[in-house]
Amino acid sequence: MTTPFPTSLGAELRDLLGDDFSMAEAERLSYSYDNSRRQALPDAVAFVRSHEQVESLVRACRRHRVPVIARGRGTNTTGATVPVEGGVVVSFERMNRIVRIDPDNRLAIVEPGVLNGDLQKALAPLGFFWPPDPTSSPWCSIGGNLACNSAGPRAVKYGSPRDNTLGLRAVAGSGEGFRCGTYTTKGATGYDLTRLLIGSEGTLALVTEATLKLTPKPSALRTMRATYKDVGSAARAVARIMAQPVTPCALEFIDDVALGLARAHGGDTVPVAGAMLMIEVDGEPDALPAAADAVAAAARGDGLIELSVARTDEETALLWSARKALSPAQRTISPHKINEDVVVPVSRLPELVDGVKRLAAAHDVLIVCFGHAGNGNLHVNLLPRNDAERTRAEACLHDVFALVISLDGTLSGEHGIGIAKREFMPLALSPATLHLMHNVKDAFDPDGILNPGKLLPPRP
Amino acid sequence: MTTPFPTSLGAELRDLLGDDFSMAEAERLSYSYDNSRRQALPDAVAFVRSHEQVESLVRACRRHRVPVIARGRGTNTTGATVPVEGGVVVSFERMNRIVRIDPDNRLAIVEPGVLNGDLQKALAPLGFFWPPDPTSSPWCSIGGNLACNSAGPRAVKYGSPRDNTLGLRAVAGSGEGFRCGTYTTKGATGYDLTRLLIGSEGTLALVTEATLKLTPKPSALRTMRATYKDVGSAARAVARIMAQPVTPCALEFIDDVALGLARAHGGDTVPVAGAMLMIEVDGEPDALPAAADAVAAAARGDGLIELSVARTDEETALLWSARKALSPAQRTISPHKINEDVVVPVSRLPELVDGVKRLAAAHDVLIVCFGHAGNGNLHVNLLPRNDAERTRAEACLHDVFALVISLDGTLSGEHGIGIAKREFMPLALSPATLHLMHNVKDAFDPDGILNPGKLLPPRP
Repeated sequence: MTTPFPTSLGAELRDLLGDDFSMAEAERLSYSYDNSRRQALPDAVAFVRSHEQVESLVRACRRHRVPVIARGRGTNTTGATVPVEGGVVVSFERMNRIVRIDPDNRLAIVEPGVLNGDLQKALAPLGFFWPPDPTSSPWCSIGGNLACNSAGPRAVKYGSPRDNTLGLRAVAGSGEGFRCGTYTTKGATGYDLTRLLIGSEGTLALVTEATLKLTPKPSALRTMRATYKDVGSAARAVARIMAQPVTPCALEFIDDVALGLARAHGGDTVPVAGAMLMIEVDGEPDALPAAADAVAAAARGDGLIELSVARTDEETALLWSARKALSPAQRTISPHKINEDVVVPVSRLPELVDGVKRLAAAHDVLIVCFGHAGNGNLHVNLLPRNDAERTRAEACLHDVFALVISLDGTLSGEHGIGIAKREFMPLALSPATLHLMHNVKDAFDPDGILNPGKLLPPRP
Repeated sequence: MTTPFPTSLGAELRDLLGDDFSMAEAERLSYSYDNSRRQALPDAVAFVRSHEQVESLVRACRRHRVPVIARGRGTNTTGATVPVEGGVVVSFERMNRIVRIDPDNRLAIVEPGVLNGDLQKALAPLGFFWPPDPTSSPWCSIGGNLACNSAGPRAVKYGSPRDNTLGLRAVAGSGEGFRCGTYTTKGATGYDLTRLLIGSEGTLALVTEATLKLTPKPSALRTMRATYKDVGSAARAVARIMAQPVTPCALEFIDDVALGLARAHGGDTVPVAGAMLMIEVDGEPDALPAAADAVAAAARGDGLIELSVARTDEETALLWSARKALSPAQRTISPHKINEDVVVPVSRLPELVDGVKRLAAAHDVLIVCFGHAGNGNLHVNLLPRNDAERTRAEACLHDVFALVISLDGTLSGEHGIGIAKREFMPLALSPATLHLMHNVKDAFDPDGILNPGKLLPPRP
């Protein structure tokens, strides 16, 4: 679908948006890629500022059957915002007002372009936070978080965007503007369109406003690091921690290969071990010691090498240093990192990690495993160092997904599907489920103009 | 749609289900009503026992365009399971196995006919619970809880079924069996069909298996009762409690009219006050005192009469006695109670309660308000004592809903829509939102055979 962009549509969108609409080469190039390193040129870029503009834009594009690709800050890693069929990239970066913060009702109303980190800064003095915390938090947008259901370490205690959003205003692919959800924390009034839109990667509707559920921020935090002689011991500790009543607010796992890399890059503050857990427990100061003790007790067990508890900010930073050294260490090794974020039930983590090690050996590819163990959400990063390894990594990836599905897991915990994992969807979902998802897509976007080529594989 | 039931369909379903299929008058009568006191005769009743039977049944009924009405135990109050257009009532009461309880992964897999209370009993020895706790918990089914997104007091801390369900197996109105969701607590693999089905009242699909998210049960509980000189003082206390970090596991409100009724019925253990809050805080024994103190501090403030903390089980029972006396007291007064469960943002509770008092006076109808204040979810019960009052109550109800919407609230927090509130849906949802919901309905149920006449008003 590389038909020429209709001249009359360009003129119409220029009338609608003025200088907030561009067909200039430089602008088109800037919005041709995202953090997936994939690239495709859009025909135009629109910087919307209001719900009404989005309605008019979608209607105009629909009349011409021109693709519309919603975009926050492009931090996703799956190509979800790459305009693979051309069309108009709708950037929400100028639609970035915090409309209202309402602590009495534990909610905030924001435009989609608000950065996650900016919202957190605005909430902090009021004693609240919005739980989703992707690593890209300082520069990713709330709209993008909602589109991909992006979470981070805190999800283990506080949930993902689907658990922390009350309602949305949006524009469907039909051009219809609508509201869904409530301003309340409970609701049983019709179908849950809010959660349906969250994680739909801009394929059903463009979100123009979100009512977010806020959580009071506990005032105290305790950081612990536990090292284990092997992966199995660490994974069993995770299961023990998750089976007792105090849920940590972070429960991060790092395997031996990742630890080795981090140590080579970050120096000998990084411990030598078969596996490591980073654990954080939050709470009010009076209650925190008992909560932290309960989690520490569960972390102890067969195979534990050492459990360290940070007593100062400096000690906390030191404990996290191994985890922080990991990303630059990976970049040094491989410019073509394939980073996945598969999920399995917590008890299947040992099988997943062991299985990945076997696949790494069989395909002769370096793989590191780390991530949000409390949710069973593991970043399985394949690190090919040259073209030959890259080809082997692609083959290995298919086997990794098949392993994950065989362990009752799923393809993605927080990155989403985009173009990167679209072809693997039939591994995770039956033809009937995919058929219903296509029907839902048609219900919102009858002409298929919203973010074509993403998330759902083509109908058989 | 009162066409005669096709003889060949009856024969086919008899072949499929044997003695689990009945067209006998007695059986049809037993399944003609639910707790809404509305009634309509089905043509037949099917007691299914497997997913495969449900698939075959829906396909057969679809061929004949015969309605299919899923039914748990009929405890809903909105008529959601009354077969208003005849057809086959599909009772899940014989499909009631707890398939698997998996504490390591904090999940349970159940058939829809399992009673909420039976699941809680099975979970208790393992230290877990499933948070949704409607008052009907001992005799309502999990399938019904999912269909109506039914919750109860604990939702303020632990959420409703939408927040506590990981995945579903179901049969769409098309006759397609499918799975959605995951066995993991995180997932970003396609559209969230799980939450879409929850609260859809059997109009999209029949749930045949649910994977529920379990929560470790805190081992200690502290019960408090706070009385206030007026409703406004109590409502402001609710806002203060919800703005600090310790969330109670119950925060129930009772207005002065309800207290008066309870006292007349339950005796003078019920306090005299302008309003009352029942508050429960749970946690581990070491942490509970600090948590309870934080909540108690927030409950104190302008207008507080007395804050009582129960120290023994007897004292706890005594504190709850006013709340328990309320239901029988209402029944004594009015056999035609209209019980609503509207929701408003917590800070709007005083305006809601004041507004309802004004409407009660204007329409000359007795109304009591009580309910789950932490969610802003109030049971507004109209208690007409005779036919004249009943007519006035119907008129008053419309004004109550209009008031709720004007306060940014919604029609139902946990009862759902059914037939009782269907006509009011356009008050809460715009034509565009309703249009999209109809499209979603068509996506799952192209011939409109699933629970016709419920939830969505007819397309304009």
